[in-house]
Amino acid sequence: AGDAEAGKAKAAVCAACHGKNGIAAIPGYPNLAGQNEQYLVSSLKAYKNKQRNGGQAAIMQGQAAGLSDEDIANLAAYYASLPADGGE
Amino acid sequence: AGDAEAGKAKAAVCAACHGKNGIAAIPGYPNLAGQNEQYLVSSLKAYKNKQRNGGQAAIMQGQAAGLSDEDIANLAAYYASLPADGGE
Repeated sequence: AGDAEAGKAKAAVCAACHGKNGIAAIPGYPNLAGQNEQYLVSSLKAYKNKQRNGGQAAIMQGQAAGLSDEDIANLAAYYASLPADGGE
Repeated sequence: AGDAEAGKAKAAVCAACHGKNGIAAIPGYPNLAGQNEQYLVSSLKAYKNKQRNGGQAAIMQGQAAGLSDEDIANLAAYYASLPADGGE
């Protein structure tokens, strides 16, 4: 499993769209807080591999392109660890 | 926007993987409870159009194939209306 602390350090750029607490402020963008960790890994890899298209996928393809497998694991651990209701 | 009550009626098949309360019981499957409504619409359409691949996407391509735009709107409204922490 990933390192949530390391993921937090990497997540600053994600917050612009997905919210500081993992609750997206922008309609059409998914909340990530409390999401299933394995699903987050799978999704990020699918974006990185350009297997996900449609919607805003092109943005995430670009964001995920620079992430290592370790980065992906850490980010997934971080967002999975946040409370799903956005509370602190 | 969709009709959450109509979405609920259509969601029985979704619950097998995504949980009765929208919290997935199976690792690797996303929670849907409290997710952004527009994102859910966008995702379901991307699966229906086979724009999403990788991970377990083939399963969702099949599930979404039979959904009308109205079904998609209703399902998105339903899952977006559920509490993100799975509470009743």
